[in-house]
Amino acid sequence: MSTSAPKLKVMILGGPNLGRLGLREPDIYGRMTWEELEVRCRSWGEEFNLEIDFVQDDGEGALVGLIHRASDQTDGLILNAAAYTHTSVAIRDAVAAVDIPVIEIHLTNPTAREEFRQTNLLAGVVNAGVFGFGINGYRLAIEGMAGLLS
Amino acid sequence: MSTSAPKLKVMILGGPNLGRLGLREPDIYGRMTWEELEVRCRSWGEEFNLEIDFVQDDGEGALVGLIHRASDQTDGLILNAAAYTHTSVAIRDAVAAVDIPVIEIHLTNPTAREEFRQTNLLAGVVNAGVFGFGINGYRLAIEGMAGLLS
Amino acid sequence: MSTSAPKLKVMILGGPNLGRLGLREPDIYGRMTWEELEVRCRSWGEEFNLEIDFVQDDGEGALVGLIHRASDQTDGLILNAAAYTHTSVAIRDAVAAVDIPVIEIHLTNPTAREEFRQTNLLAGVVNAGVFGFGINGYRLAIEGMAGLLS
Amino acid sequence: MSTSAPKLKVMILGGPNLGRLGLREPDIYGRMTWEELEVRCRSWGEEFNLEIDFVQDDGEGALVGLIHRASDQTDGLILNAAAYTHTSVAIRDAVAAVDIPVIEIHLTNPTAREEFRQTNLLAGVVNAGVFGFGINGYRLAIEGMAGLLS
Amino acid sequence: MSTSAPKLKVMILGGPNLGRLGLREPDIYGRMTWEELEVRCRSWGEEFNLEIDFVQDDGEGALVGLIHRASDQTDGLILNAAAYTHTSVAIRDAVAAVDIPVIEIHLTNPTAREEFRQTNLLAGVVNAGVFGFGINGYRLAIEGMAGLLS
Amino acid sequence: MSTSAPKLKVMILGGPNLGRLGLREPDIYGRMTWEELEVRCRSWGEEFNLEIDFVQDDGEGALVGLIHRASDQTDGLILNAAAYTHTSVAIRDAVAAVDIPVIEIHLTNPTAREEFRQTNLLAGVVNAGVFGFGINGYRLAIEGMAGLLS
Amino acid sequence: MSTSAPKLKVMILGGPNLGRLGLREPDIYGRMTWEELEVRCRSWGEEFNLEIDFVQDDGEGALVGLIHRASDQTDGLILNAAAYTHTSVAIRDAVAAVDIPVIEIHLTNPTAREEFRQTNLLAGVVNAGVFGFGINGYRLAIEGMAGLLS
Amino acid sequence: MSTSAPKLKVMILGGPNLGRLGLREPDIYGRMTWEELEVRCRSWGEEFNLEIDFVQDDGEGALVGLIHRASDQTDGLILNAAAYTHTSVAIRDAVAAVDIPVIEIHLTNPTAREEFRQTNLLAGVVNAGVFGFGINGYRLAIEGMAGLLS
Amino acid sequence: MSTSAPKLKVMILGGPNLGRLGLREPDIYGRMTWEELEVRCRSWGEEFNLEIDFVQDDGEGALVGLIHRASDQTDGLILNAAAYTHTSVAIRDAVAAVDIPVIEIHLTNPTAREEFRQTNLLAGVVNAGVFGFGINGYRLAIEGMAGLLS
Amino acid sequence: MSTSAPKLKVMILGGPNLGRLGLREPDIYGRMTWEELEVRCRSWGEEFNLEIDFVQDDGEGALVGLIHRASDQTDGLILNAAAYTHTSVAIRDAVAAVDIPVIEIHLTNPTAREEFRQTNLLAGVVNAGVFGFGINGYRLAIEGMAGLLS
Amino acid sequence: MSTSAPKLKVMILGGPNLGRLGLREPDIYGRMTWEELEVRCRSWGEEFNLEIDFVQDDGEGALVGLIHRASDQTDGLILNAAAYTHTSVAIRDAVAAVDIPVIEIHLTNPTAREEFRQTNLLAGVVNAGVFGFGINGYRLAIEGMAGLLS
Amino acid sequence: MSTSAPKLKVMILGGPNLGRLGLREPDIYGRMTWEELEVRCRSWGEEFNLEIDFVQDDGEGALVGLIHRASDQTDGLILNAAAYTHTSVAIRDAVAAVDIPVIEIHLTNPTAREEFRQTNLLAGVVNAGVFGFGINGYRLAIEGMAGLLS
Repeated sequence: MSTSAPKLKVMILGGPNLGRLGLREPDIYGRMTWEELEVRCRSWGEEFNLEIDFVQDDGEGALVGLIHRASDQTDGLILNAAAYTHTSVAIRDAVAAVDIPVIEIHLTNPTAREEFRQTNLLAGVVNAGVFGFGINGYRLAIEGMAGLLS
Repeated sequence: MSTSAPKLKVMILGGPNLGRLGLREPDIYGRMTWEELEVRCRSWGEEFNLEIDFVQDDGEGALVGLIHRASDQTDGLILNAAAYTHTSVAIRDAVAAVDIPVIEIHLTNPTAREEFRQTNLLAGVVNAGVFGFGINGYRLAIEGMAGLLS
Repeated sequence: MSTSAPKLKVMILGGPNLGRLGLREPDIYGRMTWEELEVRCRSWGEEFNLEIDFVQDDGEGALVGLIHRASDQTDGLILNAAAYTHTSVAIRDAVAAVDIPVIEIHLTNPTAREEFRQTNLLAGVVNAGVFGFGINGYRLAIEGMAGLLS
Repeated sequence: MSTSAPKLKVMILGGPNLGRLGLREPDIYGRMTWEELEVRCRSWGEEFNLEIDFVQDDGEGALVGLIHRASDQTDGLILNAAAYTHTSVAIRDAVAAVDIPVIEIHLTNPTAREEFRQTNLLAGVVNAGVFGFGINGYRLAIEGMAGLLS
Repeated sequence: MSTSAPKLKVMILGGPNLGRLGLREPDIYGRMTWEELEVRCRSWGEEFNLEIDFVQDDGEGALVGLIHRASDQTDGLILNAAAYTHTSVAIRDAVAAVDIPVIEIHLTNPTAREEFRQTNLLAGVVNAGVFGFGINGYRLAIEGMAGLLS
Repeated sequence: MSTSAPKLKVMILGGPNLGRLGLREPDIYGRMTWEELEVRCRSWGEEFNLEIDFVQDDGEGALVGLIHRASDQTDGLILNAAAYTHTSVAIRDAVAAVDIPVIEIHLTNPTAREEFRQTNLLAGVVNAGVFGFGINGYRLAIEGMAGLLS
Repeated sequence: MSTSAPKLKVMILGGPNLGRLGLREPDIYGRMTWEELEVRCRSWGEEFNLEIDFVQDDGEGALVGLIHRASDQTDGLILNAAAYTHTSVAIRDAVAAVDIPVIEIHLTNPTAREEFRQTNLLAGVVNAGVFGFGINGYRLAIEGMAGLLS
Repeated sequence: MSTSAPKLKVMILGGPNLGRLGLREPDIYGRMTWEELEVRCRSWGEEFNLEIDFVQDDGEGALVGLIHRASDQTDGLILNAAAYTHTSVAIRDAVAAVDIPVIEIHLTNPTAREEFRQTNLLAGVVNAGVFGFGINGYRLAIEGMAGLLS
Repeated sequence: MSTSAPKLKVMILGGPNLGRLGLREPDIYGRMTWEELEVRCRSWGEEFNLEIDFVQDDGEGALVGLIHRASDQTDGLILNAAAYTHTSVAIRDAVAAVDIPVIEIHLTNPTAREEFRQTNLLAGVVNAGVFGFGINGYRLAIEGMAGLLS
Repeated sequence: MSTSAPKLKVMILGGPNLGRLGLREPDIYGRMTWEELEVRCRSWGEEFNLEIDFVQDDGEGALVGLIHRASDQTDGLILNAAAYTHTSVAIRDAVAAVDIPVIEIHLTNPTAREEFRQTNLLAGVVNAGVFGFGINGYRLAIEGMAGLLS
Repeated sequence: MSTSAPKLKVMILGGPNLGRLGLREPDIYGRMTWEELEVRCRSWGEEFNLEIDFVQDDGEGALVGLIHRASDQTDGLILNAAAYTHTSVAIRDAVAAVDIPVIEIHLTNPTAREEFRQTNLLAGVVNAGVFGFGINGYRLAIEGMAGLLS
Repeated sequence: MSTSAPKLKVMILGGPNLGRLGLREPDIYGRMTWEELEVRCRSWGEEFNLEIDFVQDDGEGALVGLIHRASDQTDGLILNAAAYTHTSVAIRDAVAAVDIPVIEIHLTNPTAREEFRQTNLLAGVVNAGVFGFGINGYRLAIEGMAGLLS
């Protein structure tokens, strides 16, 4: 983790299908797009003096590489691994090897859904988590990250 | 839910062993006591214009009754059911019958612990949740509740 | 069991959340309250020459104590353990030690609900059962108890 | 369901081995035969102004056909599927497609028996049930059916 | 069981697909037909002074009825329930209610086949069994039955 | 399989409750009856120069016998075993012993339904399958069978 | 879905290892290559007035992206997800969010293979399916899609 | 743990239904009552210079509170949690947070009973245990505690 | 297997605790001792022109060695592995490597006993089996072996 | 059990690896050797007028034989089967056939260790047990045995 | 496999996170980087006259493609699939379709880690394996491959 | 572990049935006998300056004792526990208590065989392993051991 920089840096990383936010099943996920969420998050980051590295990818391997980048270039990771939350040991291994704090985030409450979503391979290696608050959960995660980094 | 009161009311409810906070396993749960947490939460409530009803009980039946009280007298419930999270269908039934928003909270990350703590009977009936932020998680939950109630 | 009393006595015992009957989820459980049900049951008891001891408690330990009371003071027990049906070995042990007939009752058909409600710790130690008839099931249980006691 | 007939009709349907009632394991099932039970049920039906269609078959396919007949020609079905309760998806499908109320009945308490009897494929699609009252359970089921039909 | 008849009677009962013996998969089951096996069994019965009632049916309900007949009219039952061995609680119930000795027989060794053939609902209620000897197993079962009846 | 007949013969076999097609749950299965489907299938058979043997039965044993008939008298079998798909080892054994191609068909997508419908005892012994196309699936199965037989 | 275009468009999408068709295990999958199958499918598409978008990729993330493209640019999706059928929640989520009809296709009968292939994460979210017809199954799927789209 | 007091103090704590000792199922548990056992234990305590705090409660929450009291006011805990042994995470959490030695005791051998009694949530957090010696087991536990405290 | 010897040789091998036959639980296993059984088996062997090598050992490794001896020096093995039937992969491996026919034998019907006796590691590698006939089962096994060797 | 001998005899039997006591993992098992423990146990036996037969073996078959010896020559058995506790049906069968009281003993608390140590094949057939008291547990077991024998 | 080339070619393929070798968790995996390992492997390859194709990728689909390349261009594959070992059916399918020998390698002993690492989808399709030797395991694998290729 | 001896000593230990190597199933295990393998291993040991203690036993208890000997008298253990790999907690305990490095070896790839061979009780306590290289695997294990000891 970088030490005394005037502004700390946090990666907000989205997994598969999140790029379709606002387009896909708006009844569940709302009508705000991923691009609009980025603007919102940057502004929330300002509030807590955090620079936001906002990225999304559908590929498991690509997400592994982005977590390596977070580890090398940022001070904290807010991760919504979406479907990979339930299946990816590779992302779990990448997160487990990271020295910066990691917060897991979900827009909805995944426990209220299908059986196979009960398996959460990431929860055992993250520091903290936030779920079910929709878009506002990103604000809480940013604020919570600020707390963990202070 | 009461409608346009100048100040909304939120119950923060703690389950078994939480009255021992600060005394029990301080390496894990920190040194702040339950009584000190109450003071902190009331102050955070002020910030978001929420009146806090702060209660704790070790008994499953008593908690069921307190959830009935939350349903009748408050506008939101922030619930740390502690061990009953993993075993109580009675508390689940009480929560499921409530019309106000319910946020689940844990001081630590329970997924990183024993097998029998993987079963979460409450997660399926709450609206949202926060875990792993320690004491600061209560602030995030209060802020998140303010969002859900607005 | 008391032997030749002119009027036999039967306890009707309700478990957690049943005190909220008529208030909680009326689409599922109807609008009759627990207090109104007591009146109805007393009247049905009259019909079959049975005195009714009508009690409810949300607490597992309290229910154990009430089953002890049923064992000492009544001739039969009609038990709706609600959520504890699925989790309480303590109540099962109390029922198993009782010498009077015990009838299990549920207002709805619990098998048509969540997975964890498939576990029924009590069914193995009761004499008989009635489910899915709503309020009218209490009349059938009282009539059935009269049959078991005759 | 037929609407305002002066006398409604109810099928009482028995599954495999029930034709041996009174002959088979009388310590468990009593000494009344299936034929004697028919007489008794018809008389109980009179009491509640219900005409009884009383049938039994050992075959799974035959029972499926009789449930179709109940659906076409009667107003309610009281079903003791015996062993098929635990194994027959075909009977479950037939029951699920029926528009009349269906009451499941067992002479004994099946939960107190072998592991494989814990699986109940029918319970999820019936309206109500009665078990453990022996022959008298048929009276309760008929009375309960009268209630459901009124 | 009949007591002192000069010649005792034994039913040999075959389940589904056994009528195709000799035609179906002769590499596994051999080329002798079910009709030829009947001749062989009658002759073996002679040897041990047993009259053979040799029957086969593909239907579960029909087999239940034939077991009732064995119970009423014979002194012992040699049963090859074929596929129903693994799925029929109805046949198990019929066998369990029988007072005569019952021997289970299989031409091959069923344990060496598919997973779902590991479940054997009958083995728990039969007296004895013979498997893997092919046609000759019927001779051993008849001889063993003679021993059980003596 | 018959070899060079000018017209090959295919059995279309329906299992339990399919005789109620069009009457039972039309929202799911449509309003075409089993008899109307027969007409349609015969006409589709004409198109591919196939003679259709169109039969239905509710009984497991009867279906076993009809599969024997298909094996002896036809060149291919299109089988909708309905509920027995999930429970019948007897039908599986009958299909496994058949030398003609067998196509499994379902009107709907059974995987999207209850847990116990995930078990498919037949799929391991059929050659091919078609599901979810409704009535039109029968046309695809007939065409597919023509391909397998050519 | 595009509405009244003279020619509707259908994506045929292949998953991991399908690019090796014809080269890999030809005893099982035949000797036709993926490129030759494309030609064949385009010609079958002509027959039913459908334009074919024929694509293949080994990557889970890439397939998620291609399903997004199908959703935006085509009227139907014929999907052979190969190995990802059994492991990918990400592809399931992508399919579930799509408004166009989706047909699952397999060249062979996957149920007859290893245990871990019994898990099918896609079947619950597709409309229909075809398996075990080899190359000819693609023709049936195209014809079936034409039916679903008309 | 208190350090050099002339007489150390040990809590003997009983769970649900133990207050009925001697009354409930005397064939299994003997005829000595809980009150008589208290006298006996006090006397055995004398022998080993231990003061006994002898308490019982049927409630899970109350037992949690009594374990807190043991932690604050005594030097060792001998716990018979009865039915809660198999279901209570709350009691487990309370025991785990205690710094004094804890001995688990059962009058009978619970392993020889029902399946659900195989789950023991406490055994993993106690120091030692004694079972199957009946009343005399309390003497062994007191002596064993004296050893652990010396 | 040796080929044309005038008298073939068969090993009858007993596993752990069988040396106590007649002494241990005579209600279940009868009063004949292992030594008396040897005499009986030798005499039955005479009848079928078989020389009997009759041995018993309590040790798993010793039994493995004796199976090697059977393989080298005899023409058939009749094996009662007793408790090792349920736990020994080593004995299974030894049996699987043997070229002579192997018959499994049990005095009682093990399927009617504890859960852990349902696992049978040997059944998958033996040729045939006999159970539940008591001492007489050894005669049937010797006769059956004579059949397999002829 | 021998009846009125002036001194009763008790076998203390140790299983695999116990001969290495004091040498193997002394942090867990202490530094007292098996030979030193024998001296200690003989002296404790004196105290309760019991003669001690102190034996150890690493082999499953040898332990079966020693249990036979205990049954023939002693009045009680104190058994630490070590690893065989979790895997040996043979030792369970030997213990179950014994008429003398059997006490199970473990130096540590095995429940707090690996998953496969949760299976205890012996607990269901012993009379009583003691665990977690280290060497002192042997004293408690000897005293408890004296109680069972008086 | 290419046949008689003077120098055979072997691909050494690394899966997700292996590019971080030496940087990530050096206490477990050591301080040698992936680039340094390449140098070492090339030199070990020289020793056994093998040309090394040394590649790594984080993506599942990319690894599938590289296995296709190994199949087309090399004579053997040494595969460390890392996290995909436990989740990827796609990589298993790719390996299963390869005609060259495949050796699985792990730096550590994965069996000593989390539950979900017990599932190994690759082990069933590789020829041989090496684990737990750290960097030196690559030398052993190269030597072992030389043996398999000779 | 001995420290600076000019020649270190390694035990190569074989489990049940390995003494039959070359005789038993040569298609799988090859034609080299255990005695010939000893010669080969001694020569390989020379190469790496290791003295080989080469032993085999069929008995679980005997293997436990030999592991104790390895611990006392050698510097490393190469263990092929054969069938006991899957069933022996006793051998696991013995290995876990050893301070010298332990390498697990199998001639074939056991994962590609029966379900019950998936359980490996030893893998969690060994340092490293080698499988599937046949006889040559012993050379690799000796070389790997030399590396671990240097």
